[in-house]
Amino acid sequence: MPALDLSATSVDLTRTICDIPSVSGDETPLADAIHAAVQVLPHVDVYRDGDTIVARTDLGRAQRVAIAGHIDTVPINGNVPTRDILIDGEPYVWGRGTVDMKAGVAVQLKLAAELADPRVDITWMWYDHEEVDADLNGLTRLARTRPDLFAADFAILGEPSNGTVEGGCNGTLRAIVRTTGVRAHSARSWVGENAIHKAAPVLSRLAAYEPAAIDVDGLVYREGLNAVRIGGGVASNVIPDLCEIEVNYRFAPSRDAEGAEDHVRNVFAGCEVDIVDLALGARPGLDAPLAREFVAAVGAEPRPKYGWTDVARFSAFGIPAVNYGPGDPLLAHHDEERVSFAQVDAVEQGLRAWLTGR
Amino acid sequence: MPALDLSATSVDLTRTICDIPSVSGDETPLADAIHAAVQVLPHVDVYRDGDTIVARTDLGRAQRVAIAGHIDTVPINGNVPTRDILIDGEPYVWGRGTVDMKAGVAVQLKLAAELADPRVDITWMWYDHEEVDADLNGLTRLARTRPDLFAADFAILGEPSNGTVEGGCNGTLRAIVRTTGVRAHSARSWVGENAIHKAAPVLSRLAAYEPAAIDVDGLVYREGLNAVRIGGGVASNVIPDLCEIEVNYRFAPSRDAEGAEDHVRNVFAGCEVDIVDLALGARPGLDAPLAREFVAAVGAEPRPKYGWTDVARFSAFGIPAVNYGPGDPLLAHHDEERVSFAQVDAVEQGLRAWLTGR
Repeated sequence: MPALDLSATSVDLTRTICDIPSVSGDETPLADAIHAAVQVLPHVDVYRDGDTIVARTDLGRAQRVAIAGHIDTVPINGNVPTRDILIDGEPYVWGRGTVDMKAGVAVQLKLAAELADPRVDITWMWYDHEEVDADLNGLTRLARTRPDLFAADFAILGEPSNGTVEGGCNGTLRAIVRTTGVRAHSARSWVGENAIHKAAPVLSRLAAYEPAAIDVDGLVYREGLNAVRIGGGVASNVIPDLCEIEVNYRFAPSRDAEGAEDHVRNVFAGCEVDIVDLALGARPGLDAPLAREFVAAVGAEPRPKYGWTDVARFSAFGIPAVNYGPGDPLLAHHDEERVSFAQVDAVEQGLRAWLTGR
Repeated sequence: MPALDLSATSVDLTRTICDIPSVSGDETPLADAIHAAVQVLPHVDVYRDGDTIVARTDLGRAQRVAIAGHIDTVPINGNVPTRDILIDGEPYVWGRGTVDMKAGVAVQLKLAAELADPRVDITWMWYDHEEVDADLNGLTRLARTRPDLFAADFAILGEPSNGTVEGGCNGTLRAIVRTTGVRAHSARSWVGENAIHKAAPVLSRLAAYEPAAIDVDGLVYREGLNAVRIGGGVASNVIPDLCEIEVNYRFAPSRDAEGAEDHVRNVFAGCEVDIVDLALGARPGLDAPLAREFVAAVGAEPRPKYGWTDVARFSAFGIPAVNYGPGDPLLAHHDEERVSFAQVDAVEQGLRAWLTGR
């Protein structure tokens, strides 16, 4: 098992943990490395559940902050191991996970080791399976097995936000849109009905779809509706009787579950639509005292978070939560994913300053 | 290994060999059973190559006829084991492979055992992998390892033809049509380009496509162009950068390879098109003396064969070849595939009469 040196720089730690592949479902080697590195720290209690690791100070402070980051990534596409690159003279770490969100995790690990005496108690949470079904998410599991560990007055998710505070998040819904037909030999196709051809209007509606931009508590949330997967076919000489299109709808936090579902069913009116996953968004929540204080300390104008993040989970527990991490969210999941050294350092300094009050 | 009783009726043999699943790639149990049953026949020499079995009389007759049938099927879809059903009072064997083409193989096996003294020498050929890439076809392999076994004056393929003679066959071409985009996180889809959405015009062209019907030597061949498979997607929250549509073009035997390829490239002009498989059709070939004699003996008006069959392979060797077998080709690969007892018996009698001259 590779050993993590938590006294290294956050940039070094970013490289190290990105080079331990941890695509959703394969987090164990990285979780083992994190577990080994934090369980020797004298100032935290460590709890592990599967590949989720919680490290908690218990200093009797008046307030407690949860600081969390997921350790999984989307599939690698030739972009691991990481390498250093220069863009306009600026150094970056390039590779899968640098933005979403191992640089954020690296900063958290470094500060977890360093801050033996923060001004608030801290619950550090590193968790698995964020990039896949909400059911598999390490925090979903933890909320069931150890809900007490979620106790906090404020939560910071280290999701990439360009080092500014991003409030709330969009919700996300996945659905399967199905078209059906009748199998036949492809040499006599007129006897069958081609389910893949019937998917033409579904894809045309998606291609023509104009997503909304919705103002919620002063922040404007852009929505999106996309096919993320398509599949159909029986054999090379058979007219297919089924085509499935998986769509992902990202919706503003002002919509509830029913509103989101109705919208998708309306877009695909006339098709069989099966909702397979739905996670509500979170309103910005920037009026909470600790949130206001944190925003002021970090100093930049808060912005809306487009991606669904686990702020929604804390929000559901009644805990105000924001996103704050290094990396441009536009580059998350991108083949050219990369994070600037400067942004990693800035987030490290921002968090350290607020957590130590110095 | 299940033993085959070649003295059973052709209908019984049809049930038995359909109930031994033999989807392309998994033909060995059925090939073993056929091999065991024919190698004990005193009047044939038996040769095996993989899951292809050849049984040959050597009686010094003036003429030799090749009679061939493939033993593989397309995937099973809840339609094995077979069962007997009645339609309008007529008995049928229902299930995968009954039409394409185990009833034809059953008739051939029965006659191979029974006809110790035919009026022509016979080369019986039962072969694997007909329903997949032409490269994998048992006859492709045999043509390379034992081309001498193809020597014949006339060939009959037992492909389903409703008990009439079907002349020639359409050609078949498979191509991959690709659309590409740029990956991004689906929460910020405006940064990526969705390759699945870009497939909308490809599917629209397929849905709107009007296939031609082309007269070749007096028989009219219907063409067809169909998506047989579609795939795309990286993960549930990633804008996909690739979508692949596999299309199958069935074209009249008057088109050559270049003509078929040009046609497909024209339909998908502007897209990346990769031709992955192409097998030319065969002109009807009904003017050969043995073909004329056979058509006269069977008695029905010959018709065009729509599906590509290995008549094209014999045709390429310069051997006139026709399709003649029980089963409605419209039901090949269909979930409701079934063959009437009466048609199985009629083909058995037709072949026996012509091969014995009685």
